[in-house]
Amino acid sequence: VPCDIVILPCDPTADDRLYHICIAAISLIVMVVLAAMTRRKRLCQGFMNGVPGLLSPVNFLDHTQHKGLAVAVFGVLFCKLCVVVLSQNPLPFTSLFLPEYWKLLSLFYYPALYYPLLACGTLHSQVGFVLGSLLSWTHFGVLVWQKVDCPKTPEIYKYYSLFTSLPQIACLAFLSFQYPLLLFKGLKGTVKTNASEDLDSSYYKDYVKEVLKKKPSKNSCSSFIALLWGLWSPSKLAISAVVSFIAVYQVALLLVTAVVPTLQKVRAGVNEDIAFLLAGFNIVLSQDRAEVVRIVVYYMWCVEVCYLSAMTLSCLVTLVMLMRSMVLHRSNLKGLYRGDIYNVYNRQRSIRPSRPALVCWMGFTSYQAALVCLGMVIQTLVFFICIMFAVFLIIIPILYGQNLILFRILRNMWPFWLMLLLVVVIQHASSKFVFIKKDAGTRDLDNRSGLFLMAYLLFPVNVLVGVLVGVWRVVITGLFNIIHLGRLDISLLNRGVEAFDPGYRCYSHYLKIEVSQSHPVMKAFCGMLLRSAGQEGGAGQKMRDVEEGIQLVQQEKKQNKVSNARRARARWLLLFTLVNNPSLVGSRKHFQCQSSESFLNGTLSRTAKDGDEMDTSQKEASKGGAESTASN
Amino acid sequence: VPCDIVILPCDPTADDRLYHICIAAISLIVMVVLAAMTRRKRLCQGFMNGVPGLLSPVNFLDHTQHKGLAVAVFGVLFCKLCVVVLSQNPLPFTSLFLPEYWKLLSLFYYPALYYPLLACGTLHSQVGFVLGSLLSWTHFGVLVWQKVDCPKTPEIYKYYSLFTSLPQIACLAFLSFQYPLLLFKGLKGTVKTNASEDLDSSYYKDYVKEVLKKKPSKNSCSSFIALLWGLWSPSKLAISAVVSFIAVYQVALLLVTAVVPTLQKVRAGVNEDIAFLLAGFNIVLSQDRAEVVRIVVYYMWCVEVCYLSAMTLSCLVTLVMLMRSMVLHRSNLKGLYRGDIYNVYNRQRSIRPSRPALVCWMGFTSYQAALVCLGMVIQTLVFFICIMFAVFLIIIPILYGQNLILFRILRNMWPFWLMLLLVVVIQHASSKFVFIKKDAGTRDLDNRSGLFLMAYLLFPVNVLVGVLVGVWRVVITGLFNIIHLGRLDISLLNRGVEAFDPGYRCYSHYLKIEVSQSHPVMKAFCGMLLRSAGQEGGAGQKMRDVEEGIQLVQQEKKQNKVSNARRARARWLLLFTLVNNPSLVGSRKHFQCQSSESFLNGTLSRTAKDGDEMDTSQKEASKGGAESTASN
Repeated sequence: VPCDIVILPCDPTADDRLYHICIAAISLIVMVVLAAMTRRKRLCQGFMNGVPGLLSPVNFLDHTQHKGLAVAVFGVLFCKLCVVVLSQNPLPFTSLFLPEYWKLLSLFYYPALYYPLLACGTLHSQVGFVLGSLLSWTHFGVLVWQKVDCPKTPEIYKYYSLFTSLPQIACLAFLSFQYPLLLFKGLKGTVKTNASEDLDSSYYKDYVKEVLKKKPSKNSCSSFIALLWGLWSPSKLAISAVVSFIAVYQVALLLVTAVVPTLQKVRAGVNEDIAFLLAGFNIVLSQDRAEVVRIVVYYMWCVEVCYLSAMTLSCLVTLVMLMRSMVLHRSNLKGLYRGDIYNVYNRQRSIRPSRPALVCWMGFTSYQAALVCLGMVIQTLVFFICIMFAVFLIIIPILYGQNLILFRILRNMWPFWLMLLLVVVIQHASSKFVFIKKDAGTRDLDNRSGLFLMAYLLFPVNVLVGVLVGVWRVVITGLFNIIHLGRLDISLLNRGVEAFDPGYRCYSHYLKIEVSQSHPVMKAFCGMLLRSAGQEGGAGQKMRDVEEGIQLVQQEKKQNKVSNARRARARWLLLFTLVNNPSLVGSRKHFQCQSSESFLNGTLSRTAKDGDEMDTSQKEASKGGAESTASN
Repeated sequence: VPCDIVILPCDPTADDRLYHICIAAISLIVMVVLAAMTRRKRLCQGFMNGVPGLLSPVNFLDHTQHKGLAVAVFGVLFCKLCVVVLSQNPLPFTSLFLPEYWKLLSLFYYPALYYPLLACGTLHSQVGFVLGSLLSWTHFGVLVWQKVDCPKTPEIYKYYSLFTSLPQIACLAFLSFQYPLLLFKGLKGTVKTNASEDLDSSYYKDYVKEVLKKKPSKNSCSSFIALLWGLWSPSKLAISAVVSFIAVYQVALLLVTAVVPTLQKVRAGVNEDIAFLLAGFNIVLSQDRAEVVRIVVYYMWCVEVCYLSAMTLSCLVTLVMLMRSMVLHRSNLKGLYRGDIYNVYNRQRSIRPSRPALVCWMGFTSYQAALVCLGMVIQTLVFFICIMFAVFLIIIPILYGQNLILFRILRNMWPFWLMLLLVVVIQHASSKFVFIKKDAGTRDLDNRSGLFLMAYLLFPVNVLVGVLVGVWRVVITGLFNIIHLGRLDISLLNRGVEAFDPGYRCYSHYLKIEVSQSHPVMKAFCGMLLRSAGQEGGAGQKMRDVEEGIQLVQQEKKQNKVSNARRARARWLLLFTLVNNPSLVGSRKHFQCQSSESFLNGTLSRTAKDGDEMDTSQKEASKGGAESTASN
C-alpha cells in the first residue's frame, strides 16, 4: 500500500516570500509607469481626467468588447481565494504577527496584486501591452516553476495543491498569450479602443433598425431573435459563468480529495480484527474471518462508488443549471428590453438604478460563485445519502438476495398498497366514465349523488393517500430546492413572496441595472453621437467614454439648428422607439415636460404606482414638469 | 413517584363487540326504514328516483345549507380513523382471523357505520329526525359510558384513549342536540328542504342584483364585499376546516402523550448512577454526585420545556396557516367568479370539470387533514431542534456563564464578522452617496469607473458574503416550506413549476370544481327557475334537486311563448351577466351558436388557447356551432 509514505513540506526554489515581495514591487512600478503614461497622454485635461481609464480596467456594462482579459483575471482571483480560505498561511509574510489578520488582509492584497494584469489592457497602448505580457509571463512562469518544483504538498491530498492551481495556470496562460496577441494586433493597427469597439458594434445599429422597421416580417423576426442571441453574454455574465465553472471544479476537487483518499486508506487497512470489532456490536457477517474482511472491503468500495456517483451527479446538475440559468437570463434581458416587466418579475417594477440594486449588482458574480459552492456541497451530501439508501436497500439485496428488509416490509404491507392503488384507480375511472358527462361540447358533472357518496365513503382511505401525497410533496420540494440552490435567477419561494429569497432578490436587482444601463437602443444612440462628434470635432474627440458621449448631447443641442420638419421626424422616431422599448422611458431626463408624450407618461405613472420605488424626488420632478407645461 | 403503577387492560361493561353487532344491525334497520319511506313517498317515480336523496346525504357543492350534520359526522369519522390507525385491534371482531385485513376493512366499515347519522337528516321528514335522534343518542351514550367505565387504558398514556375521543364525543353531542332541534323545528313547520334552503337564499339574488346594477357606487361595492364575505364557507371548506382543527388536536395530543410522560418518568428515575455513566463518556459535570443529579434533572427539564414549546409553536403556526388559507380561499373564489383566472392561477386555465379535477376535489378534505398532520410532526421536530440549540447554546450560557462555546467562536472570529459588516456597509453607503446621481427626477449611475473598481476589489470578500447569503437562503426556504407544508392553497415551488407541487395541484383542481359548480349567478338562476316552476306546476314539484332544476330549463322553453322584446331584454341581461361573470361562459351549453355573443366567444377561445385542457370534443362542438350558425 503506497499511501503510508509521509509527504514532507516542500519549499520551492522560487521562495514564495521573495517572489511576493518582488512581484508586488514590479506591479507597483507597472502601475506608476501606466499612470505616468496616461498623464502624459492627457496632460491638457489634468491628471484626474486621465486616471478614470486606468482605474476602470473592466467595463462590466459592456456587451460586445473583448472580455477575455477580465474573465481570466477574475478566474485567477477566484482560484487564489480558494487557496486563501483553506490555507493556514495565505500570505508569505505571516511569521511577523497575528496570522488571522493576515488572512483578512490577503482578501484585499490579491485583488490589488492582480490589478495591473487588468490595467495594462485598458490604455490600448503598445507600452501597456508590453508591460502586460511581461507581467503575465512572470506570474505564469513562477507559478508553473513552483508547481513543477513541488508537485506534492502535505495538505489534504498530495496532489491537491497542484490540481487546485490548474485553472489558475490556464487563466495565466491565456493572459500570457492574449497580451502578445494584442500587441501584435496593435502593431498592425487593427485594435480599437474600448468605447468605440463597443459602440461601433453593428449589433446595436441592427437592433434599432429592426425596431424602426414598420412591418416586421416573419423572416426579420427570426433574424431579430438571432441578433439578440448574438448579444449572448454581457461582461458580467461571462465573468459569472467562468467563475462559476471554476467554482464547480474547485468544489468537486475538494470533495474528492478530502474524502476518497481517506476512504481508500481505511479500505486498505481492513484486516481480520474487524470481525472482532463487528462481533462487539453483535454483527456477524460470516463465520469465516477472511470472508468478513472481503465483505467489509466490498461494502466500503460500494460506499466509495456511491460517494463518487453523488459527486459526479451534483457536478452535472450544477452545470446543467448554469446553462439553463444563462438561457433564462438571455430571455429575461430580451423581455425587459421590450418592456415585458410583468412577465419577468411577476409584478410591475421600475427599472432604474437604486441603492440595493447597485449593491446586488456589485455582488452578483460573487454570490453566484458562493451559491454554486454551497449548492454543490449540499447536493453531494443529499445525493450521497439517497444513493446509499438505494444501493444498500435495493440494489445489493436484489443482486445477492441478502438483507431484504425493505422488500420484506413492502411484502408484508402489500394489501395496504394494493388497497390504496385500487382506491385511486377507482376514483380516476369513475370520474372519467361515471361522474363526467360530455354534452354538446361542454363537460359537466353527472350523478352528483354518487359523487358525494363516494367522496364520503372514501374519506378515511383518502387521508392515507394524503399522507403519501404529503411525503411526495416534501420530497419533491426538497429536491427541487436543493437542485436549484445554485441558481440565482429563480426564486425558491412561492410566487407571492419571491423577493424574500435573498438569491433571487439579488438577481432581480442585478437585472435592473443591466437593463437600465445597457439597452441596445441607448448604446446605438451613444455610438451615433460619438461618430457625429468625431466627424465634426476631429479625431481628438473620438476617444471618449460612454459617459462623455452623454455629455455631448447638450453640445449637440447648442450647436445644431434643425428645421421644424426634421425635429418633428426626430420626435416621431423617438416616440416610436420608446413605444417599442418602454424600458427606456425611465432613463430619459425630462420625460414629463413634453405634452406630446402623454401616452408614455401614462405608462410611466402606472408603472410608478404599481412599483415599489416611487420616491419623493420623482414626484417633485413630475410636479415641476406639469408646471413647465402650463407655463408653455 | 406515581408513574410506576401498571395500568391493566380494561373491559368496559358495554362490551365493544356486542355493541358493534347491535349498532350495525340498528343502523341497517334505520337505512331500510328510510329507504322504504323514501320509496313510499316517491312511489310514482320508481325506486331509483327516490334513492338519490338517501344516497346523497351531504351536498358538498352547497354554500348556504345547514352544514352542521355533515361537519359533525366527518369529525366523528376522522377521530375514529385516528383510533384505527394507531390501534392494534381496530375492529372488535379481530379474534376470528388475520388482523391486518380487518384493519383495512375497518377503513370502509366506519364510514358505513356512521352513514345513517347523515342519511337521517337528508329526507327532512319527522321519522328521519326521530331515527336520527335515537341513533345519535345511542352512539353518544355508549361512547360516554365506555369512557366513564374505562378512563385509563394501557396504550401510549393512561388517559390517551379518553382524550383522543373528546372531539368525537363533542361531535356526537352536537348531533344528539341537533336532531331533536330539527325535529322540533319540523313540528313547528319552519324547516326547509335542502335544495330550496340553498337556492332560496337571498345571497344569490343579492349577488345577481349587484352584478346587474348599472353604476356600482362605492357603498354598493362595500356591501358587495360584505355579501361575498357572507358566503364565507362552502360545505367542503367548512368540513375541511373542522377536520383540520381536529387533526391539529389529535396530532398535538399524540405528540404530547407519546413523549412527555416518558421524559418525566426518565427524569424521576435519575439517581447518582448517572454520574458514573457520564464519567464513562468522559463528561464530568461536577465532583459532587448530588450536584450531578441536580444538573442532569435540570437539563432534562429544559429539554421537556423545549419540546412542549416547539409543539405549542407548531400548533399555533398550523392554526394561523389554516386561518390564512381560508381567507385566501375566499379571495380566490371571489376572483374566479369575476373571471380573474390569471391572478389566481398565474396562467390561463379553463374552469371546467375534468377527470383529475374531480379526483382532487373528492380527496381535498382528506389531503388537507393528512398534510396538516404531517406538517405538524415535521414542524415540531424542526422547531424542537432549533429551540434546543437556542436554549443550550445561547440562553443557558448567558444565564449561568457556562459552556460559552458559541460565544467563544464568535469572539474569535470577530475581525472576520466586522470586516464583512464593514464591506457591506461601505457598498451600501457608496452606492447611495457616490454612485447614484439624482438629476431632474431621474436616477442614473455616476462615477462608473469607481463602481467597476470597487466591484473588482471587493470580489473576494463578496464571495464570503455570498456564503452567508446562501446559508440564509437555505434557512429561509426551509423554514418557509416547513411552515407552509400544511397549506394546500399555495405552492411550495417556483412560479414556473407550481403544478408539480402535488398539494397545490390538488387545491387548484378543487377550486375549478367549486367555481364551475357553485357560481352564485347560476345558483340564483336555478332558484328562480325552481320558484317559477313551483308557481306554475303546483306544490308537488317544489321538492326538486338542483339537478332536476336544470332539467326544467327545457320544459320552460317548450311551455312559455315569450315576446320578441322580452327575449331581447333577456338576452341583454344574459350578456351583461356573462360579461361580469366570465367564468360562467364555459358552463353554457350552446355558447357558440349565437352570433351576438362573438365578444364572449373571443374571450372564451382566447382562454381555451392559453389553457391546457382544450380537448378535441370542444373543438368539434365549436365547429358544429359554426355550422349551425351558417345554416341559420
